[in-house]
Amino acid sequence: MNRLSLNDDDKRVRQWFVEQVKACGCTVKVDQMGNIFATRSGSNNSLPPIAMGSHLDTQPAGGRYDGIVGVLSALEALRTLQDHRVETYAPIAVVNWTNEEGARFPPAMLASGVWGGAFTLEHGHSRTDASGKTVKSELARIGFLGDTGCSCDANPLSAHFEVHIEQGPALEAEGLRVGVVTGVQSMNWYNVVLRGREQHCGTTPMHMRADTLLCAAKMIQAINAQALSLPGSLASVAVINSTPQSINTLAGRVQFNIDARASSNELLVQLEERLEAACRDIASKDGVQIELWDRIWQCPKTAFDDTAVEMVRQSVRKVEGGKFKEMISGAGHDSVYTARKVPTAMIFIRCKGGISHNPVEFSTQEDIQAGANVLLGAVLRYDEYLKERDLAK
Amino acid sequence: MNRLSLNDDDKRVRQWFVEQVKACGCTVKVDQMGNIFATRSGSNNSLPPIAMGSHLDTQPAGGRYDGIVGVLSALEALRTLQDHRVETYAPIAVVNWTNEEGARFPPAMLASGVWGGAFTLEHGHSRTDASGKTVKSELARIGFLGDTGCSCDANPLSAHFEVHIEQGPALEAEGLRVGVVTGVQSMNWYNVVLRGREQHCGTTPMHMRADTLLCAAKMIQAINAQALSLPGSLASVAVINSTPQSINTLAGRVQFNIDARASSNELLVQLEERLEAACRDIASKDGVQIELWDRIWQCPKTAFDDTAVEMVRQSVRKVEGGKFKEMISGAGHDSVYTARKVPTAMIFIRCKGGISHNPVEFSTQEDIQAGANVLLGAVLRYDEYLKERDLAK
Repeated sequence: MNRLSLNDDDKRVRQWFVEQVKACGCTVKVDQMGNIFATRSGSNNSLPPIAMGSHLDTQPAGGRYDGIVGVLSALEALRTLQDHRVETYAPIAVVNWTNEEGARFPPAMLASGVWGGAFTLEHGHSRTDASGKTVKSELARIGFLGDTGCSCDANPLSAHFEVHIEQGPALEAEGLRVGVVTGVQSMNWYNVVLRGREQHCGTTPMHMRADTLLCAAKMIQAINAQALSLPGSLASVAVINSTPQSINTLAGRVQFNIDARASSNELLVQLEERLEAACRDIASKDGVQIELWDRIWQCPKTAFDDTAVEMVRQSVRKVEGGKFKEMISGAGHDSVYTARKVPTAMIFIRCKGGISHNPVEFSTQEDIQAGANVLLGAVLRYDEYLKERDLAK
Repeated sequence: MNRLSLNDDDKRVRQWFVEQVKACGCTVKVDQMGNIFATRSGSNNSLPPIAMGSHLDTQPAGGRYDGIVGVLSALEALRTLQDHRVETYAPIAVVNWTNEEGARFPPAMLASGVWGGAFTLEHGHSRTDASGKTVKSELARIGFLGDTGCSCDANPLSAHFEVHIEQGPALEAEGLRVGVVTGVQSMNWYNVVLRGREQHCGTTPMHMRADTLLCAAKMIQAINAQALSLPGSLASVAVINSTPQSINTLAGRVQFNIDARASSNELLVQLEERLEAACRDIASKDGVQIELWDRIWQCPKTAFDDTAVEMVRQSVRKVEGGKFKEMISGAGHDSVYTARKVPTAMIFIRCKGGISHNPVEFSTQEDIQAGANVLLGAVLRYDEYLKERDLAK
């Protein structure tokens, strides 16, 4: 799947999604960031809807499950309510969040981030892809630049529940279908630019070089080694660019990004310090300058709402018996930003080999069904909770 | 200087060059690869001209000396003959060879390679730049797709002499202006493609990865270490590309090039074996596949012509006294390919810090003057040699 945010395929799946939810009798709102809110009325429509949300965009070489399972599970839950003529107390919404992957328009979770107040609307609109096109111009081009305000204040929700594939190997290793996600690990992204010397590869003795790419190669290994030596942390380099891209001229400029994560904010600070110290040490030994060391994105550890998590826990007990795992998410999700404003919880489902962001990404129909059932049960329980809370007033 | 071969700046400098040589009374021929031959008549025009050649194209972030010094020294030598009304025995030509750098259209020395029979004309014409434009279409666009046959048979020379900056630190280290180049080291280029797994950077445990970029980083270090451990050899990686360029998805495909050189063909074979073994070992330990290991260019060691080199030696003794160094070129030059067909020799001049392929590239006026004087002296001596040889018949 290569459905980068706001491309023509994204336009088509959005149009399909709107058709589906309209067929279920939903009203549809599109906000200023292109987030789509499909709402089914409840008996008390003065309450903001309880949302089931995720995303339909993918990585450039992504799979068919990451995000998509969450939106389709929500759609199936909605259809089930419709088929069984269930009247909920609060309205129920299905949400497709724009540009969760951030692969075309960094950073990730951009539009849920605007809704949750992590980014301004101007920041969201002005993000650009590699060709310089902005989010706003691409939203307008595909017909999804809506006029609903993109914020929790302008367009509130009562809660947010999200089903997602685990994208890791833990559930598979323990033979479990479903995980109850209690929070998301702490995450930072960095942009690093190195400056060495462009020199002729054939005439410059090995000891007289300021070889920028060799220096970057040492840093990539050191970044890996630092994370390995700090349990609970992860560090990865996936993007690199060397200039001037001439086979016989040593690179004079190398840019790379670091993705660093840890189970706590304190541990991530420690990891950052170690990564930067290791890279500065290598640069200084190699005679290469670190021209830029920039933390371009920071997302502190998220703890999900106790009540919302408890509704998921009760639902999964019903669906899967005692068979589930409480876990922390390694990946960021739209729920990270909804959690800043409203009670939020997530449900993980098992995926094959823990592999994600890859065309071989896979979850079985049975695991997806379990996740959708847990989602619906959690939403109905939360709806009951809201009703009881109102009655107790 | 960013005068990539056949761009608009290259067109302008070619037009300027043609004006200059016509002002010296030369006749101008442009061949099928856009090589420009400016010929000044001698007393025996049945002989092919003695050529002084180099190139006017540069690296994308190149200097103002690499190649350019050779063409301008030749032009100055030509003007000196004209100013002093010197009648040579053989005709004398100044040659601007197309696409010596190979930075826009790999490989390097493409058009002298076609002239020297290393590449077919079809191969030369069909090389493409990053945007897919061919050499032939760009030659036509800038008006330098000539009709003279591009081969030594169709358009012969009697000999080829080339002045070039050293691009290395040896002359500076010994306080010398000029080097007599007796040959060029053995050179290979490789294209390597690695295939690992695209995986989520936040959810994939460090020990469950097939991290393609981390594997490439280890290879880059190993390639460096192998060359360091084999005296007389050089190995460099300057070009790298990782896919899919998403900060939170491990690269699944990494492409890089290796530039490997050695003082003998045998040593280069040994280096190649060591590089490949080291990379295969790393790949197998990291669970990454070497999808492609391709030797894309091979240029065996060149030994220049004894007579032509002796003419340079005699000339440099006159110009610089005993102060010169006999040396092997680390870089490829157009003279590598002319040497396959006609007696060839080169003259190096000192350049600051040995730095080349870089905007700070620099040689003093005095060093350039010395090189041009040696060039003219060598050409006149070779002309005398041809005359005496004919008289002896």
